[in-house]
Amino acid sequence: MKLTDKPVTNFLDELASSAPAPGGGSVAALSGALGAALVSMVCNLTLGKKAYAGVQDDIGDLLAQSEALRAKLTGLLEEDVKAYTGYSKAAKMPRATDDEKADRAVAMLAALKVATDVPLSIAETAVEVMDLCQPAADKGNKWAVSDAGVAVLMAEAALRSAALNVLINLGTLKDQEFVADRRAKLEVLLEGKGIMRDEIYDDVVSRL
Amino acid sequence: MKLTDKPVTNFLDELASSAPAPGGGSVAALSGALGAALVSMVCNLTLGKKAYAGVQDDIGDLLAQSEALRAKLTGLLEEDVKAYTGYSKAAKMPRATDDEKADRAVAMLAALKVATDVPLSIAETAVEVMDLCQPAADKGNKWAVSDAGVAVLMAEAALRSAALNVLINLGTLKDQEFVADRRAKLEVLLEGKGIMRDEIYDDVVSRL
Repeated sequence: MKLTDKPVTNFLDELASSAPAPGGGSVAALSGALGAALVSMVCNLTLGKKAYAGVQDDIGDLLAQSEALRAKLTGLLEEDVKAYTGYSKAAKMPRATDDEKADRAVAMLAALKVATDVPLSIAETAVEVMDLCQPAADKGNKWAVSDAGVAVLMAEAALRSAALNVLINLGTLKDQEFVADRRAKLEVLLEGKGIMRDEIYDDVVSRL
Repeated sequence: MKLTDKPVTNFLDELASSAPAPGGGSVAALSGALGAALVSMVCNLTLGKKAYAGVQDDIGDLLAQSEALRAKLTGLLEEDVKAYTGYSKAAKMPRATDDEKADRAVAMLAALKVATDVPLSIAETAVEVMDLCQPAADKGNKWAVSDAGVAVLMAEAALRSAALNVLINLGTLKDQEFVADRRAKLEVLLEGKGIMRDEIYDDVVSRL
């Protein structure tokens, strides 16, 4: 059963338990999906409203983007759990002989790279959600402007949460070229996003 | 059916739709519950582990607190939806006569106060979750330190999201004494929490 097919309470119960998955990576993906869903909600509360006749096309485009990102993040939530399972499986491979040890090391390295690249994709997608929040606040139904504000808070929390999950995996990886590449990618993604969050939040507060 | 009994995907679908609830207030409560669940996870990965024998009592206390806060926030998620329904009902009351208009105005004011105080409770509870994150990072299983970091990101996003929902309701309230009181309470809750989030995040990053 997919994690996202479970009731919200069960998701929270499993998260709180000592079971290794879901963990922080899944929460990052869910937080991003919540942000994308809120952008969609703002759009859906704007479409077909006379007072917003001038922005219907823009809002339609925004909705198509937010729904695509929501689907992507829901998928990444499941992928994060799978990546963890893959790593656990590799760690349990036999290591009695030198050949077995070598096979296990190769499998663990590959699994750890996947477990790093999934949260990196979550971080990338969360940034794309952040990019939709100011347009949603500017053009969307003004009665839902606080929801556009919540969207950016959730998307930025998703970005930073995903970053922590990338970093914890990079910390155990020995492939220095891979580590340097992913660290550089992460830095670009994080650059200025705390400020962006605060600016959108302050702008939303100024309209309440 | 309770909102939290629905599958995660359905919750996201309903959030994205133009249906008035769930909205940003429910997301605030959920985000706080996710933060609390992550603190619980860190504790559950620490309890019974020999390497953490010296902190078992502290971790036990922390878990009791995080689980109580998680239950409270899950309850507040449902209350937020109920508060919105209450306000919608009041808005639909008849207003043909002066008496009806007066009754409706009284009911709307009362409902709006409830709809303000529920996210204020979410904000208060989110701050309590934030207070558990540094101890969880310091004393919990070091392999789960990134989860303590994600916990503070979700709890602070919950606080700010709840704040936006308090403020949008205060903006339409005419009872100036109530508005001033709730604004003051909110300011106390928000004070320094952005810095606290950044400090815990940076501390966690330094350990990865």
